[in-house]
Amino acid sequence: MASYPITMMKMKLNDCSPPSTAAARLLPFLGRHYIHFRSSMGPFQNPSFPRTIVARSAFSFSSVVTAAMASEASVKVIDGKKVAKDIRDEITAEISRMKDSIGVVPGLAVILVGERKDSATYVRNKKKACEAVGIKSYEVCLPENSTEEEVLKYISGFNDDTMVHGILVQLPLPSHMNEQKILNAVCIEKDVDGFHPLNIGRLAMRGREPLFVPCTPKGCIELLHRYNVEIKGKKAVVIGRSNIVGMPAALLLQREDATVSIVHSRTKNPEEITRQADIIISAVGQPNMVRGSWIKPGAVIIDVGINPVEDTTNPRGYRLVGDVCYEEASKVASAITPVPGGVGPMTIAMLLSNTLLSAKRIHNFK
Amino acid sequence: MASYPITMMKMKLNDCSPPSTAAARLLPFLGRHYIHFRSSMGPFQNPSFPRTIVARSAFSFSSVVTAAMASEASVKVIDGKKVAKDIRDEITAEISRMKDSIGVVPGLAVILVGERKDSATYVRNKKKACEAVGIKSYEVCLPENSTEEEVLKYISGFNDDTMVHGILVQLPLPSHMNEQKILNAVCIEKDVDGFHPLNIGRLAMRGREPLFVPCTPKGCIELLHRYNVEIKGKKAVVIGRSNIVGMPAALLLQREDATVSIVHSRTKNPEEITRQADIIISAVGQPNMVRGSWIKPGAVIIDVGINPVEDTTNPRGYRLVGDVCYEEASKVASAITPVPGGVGPMTIAMLLSNTLLSAKRIHNFK
Repeated sequence: MASYPITMMKMKLNDCSPPSTAAARLLPFLGRHYIHFRSSMGPFQNPSFPRTIVARSAFSFSSVVTAAMASEASVKVIDGKKVAKDIRDEITAEISRMKDSIGVVPGLAVILVGERKDSATYVRNKKKACEAVGIKSYEVCLPENSTEEEVLKYISGFNDDTMVHGILVQLPLPSHMNEQKILNAVCIEKDVDGFHPLNIGRLAMRGREPLFVPCTPKGCIELLHRYNVEIKGKKAVVIGRSNIVGMPAALLLQREDATVSIVHSRTKNPEEITRQADIIISAVGQPNMVRGSWIKPGAVIIDVGINPVEDTTNPRGYRLVGDVCYEEASKVASAITPVPGGVGPMTIAMLLSNTLLSAKRIHNFK
Repeated sequence: MASYPITMMKMKLNDCSPPSTAAARLLPFLGRHYIHFRSSMGPFQNPSFPRTIVARSAFSFSSVVTAAMASEASVKVIDGKKVAKDIRDEITAEISRMKDSIGVVPGLAVILVGERKDSATYVRNKKKACEAVGIKSYEVCLPENSTEEEVLKYISGFNDDTMVHGILVQLPLPSHMNEQKILNAVCIEKDVDGFHPLNIGRLAMRGREPLFVPCTPKGCIELLHRYNVEIKGKKAVVIGRSNIVGMPAALLLQREDATVSIVHSRTKNPEEITRQADIIISAVGQPNMVRGSWIKPGAVIIDVGINPVEDTTNPRGYRLVGDVCYEEASKVASAITPVPGGVGPMTIAMLLSNTLLSAKRIHNFK
């Protein structure tokens, strides 16, 4: 799974204040201009960050608050933390059954190059999550100045290792390395990230099945399933078209017979298009970009963005918000994922799920 | 390229008559029901069919006709026949330059299994088109009762043959054969159809490049380019999500920064969604399904459907119409492809173009 540099957004506490003020700050590009999304989607998915929901600010929405809060009471909060725990419990049981039955436990190898603190944290969290469900974790930490050949040598070793069923290369790699070349070296049967073009192609094609579905979009759809949100025949809008979230999420929704539109940085009227959606998946990494006015009443919202914004009232000096203005959205939507505690915990759960899937497939265990 | 059984639609001459009558005949599923497209897109692309534009019927549109015909004069007819000829001329020149320079001519191998007349016609047309531009054509015709192994043996031979730069397996294959297994045997460097999942995956991913773009959708985009239709930032609707046309066409439009929505058989309100589009690509194989009321004034329409409809006034007993009701659409759109003579001729031109591209790449000829 990719990790990216954290860009701290300077924002006041009431970052969901009415569009007249907030939009000017957040969206200088509203109106006839384009939205300039970040070019790479960088969901900030560090589970060690506080999981409390953004505190409601007392000074925004003055008169609207009472009515809005009443209607908000009816919004269903999609509890990704709870669903992820359920999934981890199911995985634990399956792994135990597999071990008892054929004496095999799934193995996940992670390759980390360099000393980035955020990457080290991700890798540590993956390891902990693996251990908790009974997946054996293999870790290689290489210095920043390693060569491509060294990384490729380890990948090749894990490709051949029958104890390893999934291989992850922690991103970003040092700039002197060719990311595409290195990722392509992971054999497709162990590419639990599901980012291999062959997987994406199969995902796009009717009648074909990918070996693995990329973790974060798989987590989004799993949340919809577990909350019994009907997808077939619904209008879905995916905001963002990254290779790791937006694009595969759109393909997944289409596989489930939604009518999908993809909104991106060159879309001229994102608000108007988004407002038509029964289901919104947002994955752009722009704090509070999707406002209440973008949302059709009753829509279901999956917010993939996990964006740190400055918050001097928080001991850490920041807090996390999604791409969707939760305060406003929860007054309009029928269901919504919080940030944090929505899609975030699902990503690692899906990685564990893909690793188990791979082990079962390789050992032909039903 | 795929060929499919021809389903002749029983239609009267005025198949573009007002929705009150025509819709009942064409679209019994309008309103709150789904549109039931054909499950496989079957563009009927036999260049040997007459290329005349559908005759205007005198008895439809009574009072509207005069005004409508006046405005129709301003619609630009996108002349696929002319563009395809230009492209074939360019290819001829390139092949001549290549032959003079390195002594190599591109080679295209076609494998035909069985005695289907339409398939035989397609293969004959491909061969003629190849010869006309200087591509060497290799043909294998196997009996209906051949085994998979025999077909695979020929594919393997062409994969290894340095004179062959493109390999096509004519579809449909006899029902006792596994189409997917056979198509997967074509090495990706010679898969000039561009249907390999690895190609589709690369097409879907930002920052990746497919080796080949599937011929029909490539032809659609080429028509937009040659007619200087701006794609970036435009709203595009693709009707149909087949692996060979709709889905890759949507991916191509997105690569060019359009905001893309995909309408399909499970879409509840195809008319409403289509009416928002600046660019419409229709590829469903339903005669005259897209009516004038589906089209935003000024939209550009690429009609991939080539559907035979019964026509007793025609010596052949049928004529060809598109997915889009040309009579109505040409009064609303700013530009439109006719059927026949629009996308049809582009498909073979793009096949020649992909074969040349392959030969240039294999021989590293710039």
